[in-house]
Amino acid sequence: MNQNFIDGLNCISYGLYIVTSSFEGKDSAMIVNTLFQVTAEPAKVAISVNKESLTHDIIQKSRIFAAMPLEQKTDLPFIGRFGFRTGRNFDKFAGLNISRSALGSPIVKEHTLSFLDVKVEKEVDVGTHTLFIGEVQDAKCLLLQTEPMTYEYYHKVIKGKAPKGATHH
Amino acid sequence: MNQNFIDGLNCISYGLYIVTSSFEGKDSAMIVNTLFQVTAEPAKVAISVNKESLTHDIIQKSRIFAAMPLEQKTDLPFIGRFGFRTGRNFDKFAGLNISRSALGSPIVKEHTLSFLDVKVEKEVDVGTHTLFIGEVQDAKCLLLQTEPMTYEYYHKVIKGKAPKGATHH
Repeated sequence: MNQNFIDGLNCISYGLYIVTSSFEGKDSAMIVNTLFQVTAEPAKVAISVNKESLTHDIIQKSRIFAAMPLEQKTDLPFIGRFGFRTGRNFDKFAGLNISRSALGSPIVKEHTLSFLDVKVEKEVDVGTHTLFIGEVQDAKCLLLQTEPMTYEYYHKVIKGKAPKGATHH
Repeated sequence: MNQNFIDGLNCISYGLYIVTSSFEGKDSAMIVNTLFQVTAEPAKVAISVNKESLTHDIIQKSRIFAAMPLEQKTDLPFIGRFGFRTGRNFDKFAGLNISRSALGSPIVKEHTLSFLDVKVEKEVDVGTHTLFIGEVQDAKCLLLQTEPMTYEYYHKVIKGKAPKGATHH
């Protein structure tokens, strides 16, 4: 993969999300940058999760996950807690005020803009990762602050309507 | 779907992309906001495409597509050309300087930051849309300007490293 190839890929826009799940009393969380909405009616989202992560195993067993977009000013230590360690030997939730979604996934309320409570419908093997596709059973805003987002900029500043075929209105 | 549910979904970050394909001499293009990278090695991306669109049919037959992220300052008429009309009775490429990817998809060079040349490996029925997952055969930058992107902001301003399990480095 040469630099031009890598630069070409780097133009894709992403958010950063905490993804959590829970199975038989074991909670798990990780950071992903790969979440998107695949249909509008009903609202379905997809996430790509590394097969080596603990959260991958827990989602496969529980068939549920929650996703929480992070605000732009989230500090690096907070991201590091979820993104740079494995939950196999470290309690990622220690000291945090956690609540629980209707489906049973942990909800982290610090630095998160909203949460999506998702029931997995399909999983697709894509090599190093699994794509989990599921229906959003519940979605709620947690913080009023928002960060700049490319698609939102399009909506609010350029006053663009949703293109035909867009899944996100 | 109540407003809180919709607001919760609106925190997902997206870019806007022109997606093109070509089959037996028929070129097609549309706008999607749903493209993400699902694995890093090899680089694979997924897009969600409305089943009613012409581009959906063309991708299903050709098994190729190209994706071009739009720059933030793209004007609405340009987006409208690709996003608000059907290519069944309108030539979306009229008057544009089009080149062709190695796999055969049209490349639009106006307002686009890069292009990804993708060969479809899997398609997943997700209801109103189909998820096309494919390997990126080629990727190139087209413009030097870039727009603010959430994940990039994380990298460059907060100086964050890629979280474990990230597909996008």
